[in-house]
Amino acid sequence: MSEKTISLGTYLFKRLHSEPIGIKNIFGVPGDFNLELLDKIEEIDGLNWVGSVNELNAGYSADGYARVKNGFSKGSLAALITTFGVGELSAVNAVAGAYSEHIPIVHIVGTPSTESTKKQLLLHHTLGNGDFDVFHKISSFISATTAVLDDPATATDEIDRVIETAYINQRPTYLGFPSNMFHLQVPASKLDKPLNLTPPPNDPKVQSEVLDDILSLIQNAKDPVIIIDACCARHDSTPEAKKLIELTSFKFAVTPMAKGSRDIDESSSRFIGTYVGDLSYPRTKDLVESSDLVLSLGAVLSDYNTGSFSYSLDNAKVVEFHSDYTKIKSAHYPGIRMKELLGKLVGEGSALTKICSHITPQKLVLDKFEPVVLPSDHIITQSWLWSNLGGWLREGDVIITETGTSSFGIVQTKFPKNAVGISQVLWGSIGYSVGSAAGAVIAAEEVDPSRRVILFVGDGSLQLTVQEISTMARHKNNIYIFVLNNEGFTIERLIHGPKAVYNDIHSWENTDLLKTFKADNYETYSLKTIGDITKVFKDEKFAKNDKIRLIEIKLDVLDGPENLIEQGRRSEASNK
Amino acid sequence: MSEKTISLGTYLFKRLHSEPIGIKNIFGVPGDFNLELLDKIEEIDGLNWVGSVNELNAGYSADGYARVKNGFSKGSLAALITTFGVGELSAVNAVAGAYSEHIPIVHIVGTPSTESTKKQLLLHHTLGNGDFDVFHKISSFISATTAVLDDPATATDEIDRVIETAYINQRPTYLGFPSNMFHLQVPASKLDKPLNLTPPPNDPKVQSEVLDDILSLIQNAKDPVIIIDACCARHDSTPEAKKLIELTSFKFAVTPMAKGSRDIDESSSRFIGTYVGDLSYPRTKDLVESSDLVLSLGAVLSDYNTGSFSYSLDNAKVVEFHSDYTKIKSAHYPGIRMKELLGKLVGEGSALTKICSHITPQKLVLDKFEPVVLPSDHIITQSWLWSNLGGWLREGDVIITETGTSSFGIVQTKFPKNAVGISQVLWGSIGYSVGSAAGAVIAAEEVDPSRRVILFVGDGSLQLTVQEISTMARHKNNIYIFVLNNEGFTIERLIHGPKAVYNDIHSWENTDLLKTFKADNYETYSLKTIGDITKVFKDEKFAKNDKIRLIEIKLDVLDGPENLIEQGRRSEASNK
Repeated sequence: MSEKTISLGTYLFKRLHSEPIGIKNIFGVPGDFNLELLDKIEEIDGLNWVGSVNELNAGYSADGYARVKNGFSKGSLAALITTFGVGELSAVNAVAGAYSEHIPIVHIVGTPSTESTKKQLLLHHTLGNGDFDVFHKISSFISATTAVLDDPATATDEIDRVIETAYINQRPTYLGFPSNMFHLQVPASKLDKPLNLTPPPNDPKVQSEVLDDILSLIQNAKDPVIIIDACCARHDSTPEAKKLIELTSFKFAVTPMAKGSRDIDESSSRFIGTYVGDLSYPRTKDLVESSDLVLSLGAVLSDYNTGSFSYSLDNAKVVEFHSDYTKIKSAHYPGIRMKELLGKLVGEGSALTKICSHITPQKLVLDKFEPVVLPSDHIITQSWLWSNLGGWLREGDVIITETGTSSFGIVQTKFPKNAVGISQVLWGSIGYSVGSAAGAVIAAEEVDPSRRVILFVGDGSLQLTVQEISTMARHKNNIYIFVLNNEGFTIERLIHGPKAVYNDIHSWENTDLLKTFKADNYETYSLKTIGDITKVFKDEKFAKNDKIRLIEIKLDVLDGPENLIEQGRRSEASNK
Repeated sequence: MSEKTISLGTYLFKRLHSEPIGIKNIFGVPGDFNLELLDKIEEIDGLNWVGSVNELNAGYSADGYARVKNGFSKGSLAALITTFGVGELSAVNAVAGAYSEHIPIVHIVGTPSTESTKKQLLLHHTLGNGDFDVFHKISSFISATTAVLDDPATATDEIDRVIETAYINQRPTYLGFPSNMFHLQVPASKLDKPLNLTPPPNDPKVQSEVLDDILSLIQNAKDPVIIIDACCARHDSTPEAKKLIELTSFKFAVTPMAKGSRDIDESSSRFIGTYVGDLSYPRTKDLVESSDLVLSLGAVLSDYNTGSFSYSLDNAKVVEFHSDYTKIKSAHYPGIRMKELLGKLVGEGSALTKICSHITPQKLVLDKFEPVVLPSDHIITQSWLWSNLGGWLREGDVIITETGTSSFGIVQTKFPKNAVGISQVLWGSIGYSVGSAAGAVIAAEEVDPSRRVILFVGDGSLQLTVQEISTMARHKNNIYIFVLNNEGFTIERLIHGPKAVYNDIHSWENTDLLKTFKADNYETYSLKTIGDITKVFKDEKFAKNDKIRLIEIKLDVLDGPENLIEQGRRSEASNK
């Protein structure tokens, strides 16, 4: 009796769609080397082709999709499909950003047939030099692993490997899929073997030593602080972090990259704000830096995440938990992974609670996130916006900010419970937020349509990726798009060239965009004064995410959040 | 007495702006690692910063600019400026296309200071792994050469080298420019040494042997044909090609990539059409393939340029002239470059005219480019459009077509004298044409504002790069944008999936675009019938390029040029 077979293309999509990966929407752009692969998506019930407008945006969308899926619940992936050469190269910046920021995307590229490759035909979409491997080589720099499916014997194993590697490492992986392999028949029973999504275990002896050291440090500390950073959520360690906060009652801060992390409750009385070194609110900086023990969870110590490396933390009082190593003072423990280690630290049988009993939580006196007050006929200012926004946000909101005034401003906004924050603080590619939002809203509607998705983007950044609003219109996504119109690249003006022509843009009629992109259930607003925005923030109908809304907010050209103005000074100095 | 000095940034821009390079407009996007370099552009009279909307489009624009500058007169370059990591990676696809199609672009990337690089700081715009060289490595795959200016002693020489290499090889080159080096003072006298833009000379002995062989082949031929391909114009060999045609009276054809090459007069009585192997008009194919000697000038034998490799040319009757080698039958002559060799062949003292005297030009009977006739209430068809377009075109027009129905259709259009054709036949990245047009029109207005720039793009491709229309609006460029609205990716439907959802797009109000992008002197048209388009083509006011115009043409979803329909069949077959 012959075994049941399925095509290799179907195998790939079944792997991606089935639990535990559970992808329901795939991003990308069709191209002549991937068309027949896309046919296989339609075969699978519940799996949809999003059809992004261009590949860079598709990559950003995959990134936003993965962030929201991971932001709502434990680990998922995103999938991105492009075509050979032209398509995959257009997505390189987005994939590099995902690599930089630990976002898992399986990048699937439809390539010429293995036959064409062997003959080194001078096909279109090639460099004309017969080198068919060059694009694969380029992607290898920005992928946790790569595979090209040129061998029927190993193809299903290779597919499994790129999915598992993306999941475990929370990084992009690359899958070159030759067009003649799409239809290759493979045994359906191969799907019965579950994917191996478990990271390698920590060495028990080393872990035991590390645990003892950490418990001893905690026992001897008077006033510890926990800093939650990006990789904590990326590597699914926020449940353990949450328990750590609960068991210890230690004060805790987040970093800009970790603002809006799952399980981390910024409305908690133990929350002391966003720690960005010298760019922190003074009281937050003081509360962190006066601690005699810092438990740093998933740190990403980049310039914009640390106030240009202005952390004033003495190595001798820091324990760093990372996705694939641990560091106590100056001692490195390779392979001692954060999730398992934290699990032991907060798990049953841990001495942690007992040890912490000597620490009496101090009453925290904080700089309050006090809303700025301005008269209703005053123009809207950045400081008003970010300090008052928290009053409009509600539990579970997804807030996406652009590298610009908004990603700095949002640090000053108090987030409600279960908020998901998305910002590309390390990679910082302008235009990212619009593509990301298109993916984020699809993920949110997939998992929980009641949750609102809210984008803040400057008028300059919007221009780079504006067409992805069309994808939101196409899928009738309900989303809020706040366009901060300050006539150009304000973040750059604050670094260098406040009046330089290169920081100017050609202004658009932003309020025409939804009509031009043929959204069919939309609202457009143009807000200039405190009165305008206050009215909108009080409007109950506006608060309901039942349509696509574009809200233009006019701001002064050189008005920026205070922390950005200081960051600008530091960035300019470091370029000298 | 101290020598006069200038900054290294100024040195770079003076090299690019001065003759013989003569760049007057620079494309790119500002970013925090290039801002102070951009200041140096303003210092130079007559050098302008274009300010593209995103980096991919900026790269396409640089490509279009270089093509038009080279299309109007002998050799030039384009310059593209991006910022480290995020910016440069967004441009990779455009630069790869320029590499593939032999377009010279100097890609200048503002990078972190040499100090930051040495310390491997975890800066934003990095992969977070301390590897600052990875983006440079990626660009090295798609550049004729690269340089990173990290040594004051060699910096001016390195700048000269990347410019010279781009020029001589007609390929992109890469220049990493650390931010602390922008202001480095160098002797102004360094500019006195002229750039070396001359390719290495051919070996006189080998060339002499090659010439003798070619002359002998011509002498023994009864009915030779000349095929002009892309690299002939790219490597400035069309003056020699023109002379070859005049001296010999041989019949001649162009390929799709060479259609609209400088000096090649498609209105000549010796012109036999566009040769694309089996996809040629039958009479063109017959006239080429019945020849007993083929002089092939600058061939790029890619699939879309040869009707899926369907050239039926016997090696034994072909002489191939290339930019860096010559091939006679099966014999390769490395280093025997086309321009010098052709120069000798057609130059004073050559035996060519005498030898050719035995060849009596046959009277050519051609398939005529007969305009299709349809009643005025008929919908516009592809076959009507391309066969009638020639009647509206006029001498010197620049015609840009998109990889799609238009790049195939335009092959069927008779070009007037001095027309410049732009199409990305080998690389074939959709969306290219819009960015390219934004650069092409700036080059045309720089050199000769009377020449019209005319873009044909499908509604699907337009969406990928639509925002570059804003740059045209910003600079008040006069351009014709014909949007072929066939509701999606017709070229892909003709390859695979005529009704597949992935070949659908979300349709826009294309006629709103110029208003939304705030063009201030514009006209918009929506044409459906033969009557509509005939009226426009007859309108004298419309013919004058004094504003930006967007002309939407509605076409049937599956209406494609015949040659594209056949190409679609062949492409699908080769993917199996």
